[in-house]
Amino acid sequence: MDIFSEIKPLRAFLDTKRDLHLSIGLVPTMGALHRGHLDLIRVSAQENDITVCSIYVNPTQFNNPSDLAKYPRTFEEDKEMLLSAGCNVIFAPLNTEMYKVPSNLRFDFGYLDKILEGEFRPGHFSGVALVVSKLFNIVKPTKAYFGQKDFQQYKVISKLAEELLFDLILSSVPIVREESGLAMSSRNKRLSESEKQDATVFYQSLLLAKQLLLSGESIEAVKIKSKQKCEAIPGVRLEYLELADTENLKPTQLVSGNAILLIAGYVGEVRLIDNLLIG
Amino acid sequence: MDIFSEIKPLRAFLDTKRDLHLSIGLVPTMGALHRGHLDLIRVSAQENDITVCSIYVNPTQFNNPSDLAKYPRTFEEDKEMLLSAGCNVIFAPLNTEMYKVPSNLRFDFGYLDKILEGEFRPGHFSGVALVVSKLFNIVKPTKAYFGQKDFQQYKVISKLAEELLFDLILSSVPIVREESGLAMSSRNKRLSESEKQDATVFYQSLLLAKQLLLSGESIEAVKIKSKQKCEAIPGVRLEYLELADTENLKPTQLVSGNAILLIAGYVGEVRLIDNLLIG
Repeated sequence: MDIFSEIKPLRAFLDTKRDLHLSIGLVPTMGALHRGHLDLIRVSAQENDITVCSIYVNPTQFNNPSDLAKYPRTFEEDKEMLLSAGCNVIFAPLNTEMYKVPSNLRFDFGYLDKILEGEFRPGHFSGVALVVSKLFNIVKPTKAYFGQKDFQQYKVISKLAEELLFDLILSSVPIVREESGLAMSSRNKRLSESEKQDATVFYQSLLLAKQLLLSGESIEAVKIKSKQKCEAIPGVRLEYLELADTENLKPTQLVSGNAILLIAGYVGEVRLIDNLLIG
Repeated sequence: MDIFSEIKPLRAFLDTKRDLHLSIGLVPTMGALHRGHLDLIRVSAQENDITVCSIYVNPTQFNNPSDLAKYPRTFEEDKEMLLSAGCNVIFAPLNTEMYKVPSNLRFDFGYLDKILEGEFRPGHFSGVALVVSKLFNIVKPTKAYFGQKDFQQYKVISKLAEELLFDLILSSVPIVREESGLAMSSRNKRLSESEKQDATVFYQSLLLAKQLLLSGESIEAVKIKSKQKCEAIPGVRLEYLELADTENLKPTQLVSGNAILLIAGYVGEVRLIDNLLIG
């Protein structure tokens, strides 16, 4: 496994692979890896000759400075896990490499980056689009892999790739869960054991919401019940639960195979998200 | 010379060239070519193995629908001129190829796209950044060439390439002028002979402004004199004359080698721009 912290030698290395017509899979991460990330690596390693994992906690996508400061960093463990999952290249740049000058560029995706996460994390998706554009232009992957847990992020990146005509294929990989049902997330490392138990309420709320919707309850009634269910637990706060069209993320009343339930909330100081496809 | 109207076969063609390690120069144009464009082609042909000229009147960079409708289109002449200048590939896509779905993406460059042209053509540079990103991702050039006449555009594209880390070199090629001093522009095709004569007042104003500034006059006094000079001619209207820092385009009082005079105005219905480096 090769490790690069600078763009120029990484590009030169990957150019030699492209010359041999080898395919390159990219898995962008912010480190603090868990089994969800390793699934992305494994799928990429199956589908490509070379798998590059980027590890970079991108400051421009954090609207909350304390969230950025407290984001877990576990580089030594990450390396071990990546090696065992079949990763070939780690790209772990410093801020000075990714942002040679302070960024003045903002992306605006219209509706798509204003709702759900965009409403609660203003500027977040502009920062995501910026860093993903940089990574695409550094690695020039054949395919790039993202987790379904960040469903809205995947929609934004799909829109970005479609609008800018990036020459690559995007792939979304299903959510990996703890036995408790809690969706794998780097932020789970910040939860105590009892908070981890409390956090399962978000997935339980998604399951209950799906069941209620399929039995004919309205999304409005389901939202009220979800809020009650979540906030019955001390320290848990629901930010949103929404039923949306999977294509454009517009709110929908239609409980169909084209719908997705999305949830976000806090357990203590830690903000978590999860989602569940209907059908 | 090969002509492509679709992205996929162009990419396949250029991939075969890249496999041979040939360098690719890109000259993005909106057609209606003149000697300024041909200079770009010639420089590219000198510096690269393959020169691609794109001809595409990009709707998203026009804030004025009548300006878009009246933009000159002269494809047959363009082809002849490109062949004689050493161009190897023309890429002339339809709107449906460049915008498969209507665009919802906007770029915001902070200060840089709000001043000068940005003030008078809101949304213009977002459309430029979008289409140039598409062209960069379609052609993946070694070098891309732009005319110095669109100086602010070059600064915006430089910022775009720097922020998104496009793997290419940008090059700015000096303004080509008619014997009268009028800067070459596709929009000149919309001017009558007498309007072409009137339009020389912009370059004359730049020359006079430089001379006055070097002799110690303030930029404020120079602006007033330029406005009087331009608007003494019936049908001519000055939109702005500014002295700016070449690095960041911020207004400056310093008449130095790092300064540029920029001018914009109308002759009849046709909007023209020009500029002059100090030093």
